Amino acid sequence: MELDTPKPRRRGRPPKQADGQRNTRAALVRAGVELLTEKGFAATGIDEFLRRVGVPKGSFYHYFSSKEAFGTELIENYANYFARKLDRWLLDESTPPLQRIANFVADARAGMERHGYRRGCVIGNLGQEMGALPDAYREHLADVFTDWETRLARCLELARQEGSIAPDSDSRTLARFFWIGWEGAVLRAKLELSPTPLDLFAQGFFLGLGR
Amino acid sequence: MELDTPKPRRRGRPPKQADGQRNTRAALVRAGVELLTEKGFAATGIDEFLRRVGVPKGSFYHYFSSKEAFGTELIENYANYFARKLDRWLLDESTPPLQRIANFVADARAGMERHGYRRGCVIGNLGQEMGALPDAYREHLADVFTDWETRLARCLELARQEGSIAPDSDSRTLARFFWIGWEGAVLRAKLELSPTPLDLFAQGFFLGLGR
Repeated sequence: MELDTPKPRRRGRPPKQADGQRNTRAALVRAGVELLTEKGFAATGIDEFLRRVGVPKGSFYHYFSSKEAFGTELIENYANYFARKLDRWLLDESTPPLQRIANFVADARAGMERHGYRRGCVIGNLGQEMGALPDAYREHLADVFTDWETRLARCLELARQEGSIAPDSDSRTLARFFWIGWEGAVLRAKLELSPTPLDLFAQGFFLGLGR
Repeated sequence: MELDTPKPRRRGRPPKQADGQRNTRAALVRAGVELLTEKGFAATGIDEFLRRVGVPKGSFYHYFSSKEAFGTELIENYANYFARKLDRWLLDESTPPLQRIANFVADARAGMERHGYRRGCVIGNLGQEMGALPDAYREHLADVFTDWETRLARCLELARQEGSIAPDSDSRTLARFFWIGWEGAVLRAKLELSPTPLDLFAQGFFLGLGR
């Protein structure tokens, strides 16, 4: 065996050490978020999440009290990841506010392209299948959208203050409009396996700002 | 037993007559479309469709060769229903073109309200869960959106010709933009159980046309 060949993963119960458990738990959350960008939650069995991480079937409840609790953690994990991504672009003081938004759009587009337009937005995906999900997710998902709206509205407000968009614009309404349409664009990009819907929506949004 | 009390449905094999079979088949398609406005296709078992119609479990393949074939028929059925709905508003020659679009929006909003914002768009729902669906659905769903775009673009073109929107507007691009965002708005309306996302997107769209 060559020195740099990784050892085969041992099957069986998860390791006793707290570290190993934390790592497995984190790996399950990562795999869960990844799966949810591609597929629905209701349609995905717990064993599919476990299989991705190579964790033996049956040990799920060692890490999470229920599939519902697991889902809640996936929402939180994705929301945190995405909030950091938004801040990276929207708080970039070296760039004019509207360009920051364009940079976020370009980054999101590149992210979708990297995965062949097969991965979308976890929050949008879960929102779409709310009819099949625990009702407690509803408020949680709506709160995530409100958080994204607040971050975008702040940036649009800067654009308004510096005169890049009409002085009577309502930044909050514009931000609401953006996320409503953007989720539609992500959905269509996944359906068409193409960036065109993202480009088209973003162009229309920026044109509308010029009113 | 009172004269107008319907006879209890007989359980067991579907009736032998061609009429009864056609009716059961049509009822299955209707129930399928109804279920798909609320829930995902992948997550919904065949028995759930059958249960809605009171058809005994196990007789599904009497009517459809596979769940995939059933899904194809649900897409076609919904696409036809929706095309008629669109025509009803968008071809209404007694009404100015932009008002026709506003009338469609108001009708769609009233439809969602009637079902407590728990039912959305079958095509949007299926598009969202493409990752878990037969790949043959992809082109089919994209074609349905193209059809809706064509119908809307014709109406926007009339608006352009009569001077209600800017003479240099691209009706096809505007129609694309509308459906991309509208599907996002339907998703959010379902998530928030509220018409606000529909109103907000429609207002933004019409404002954008005024550019």
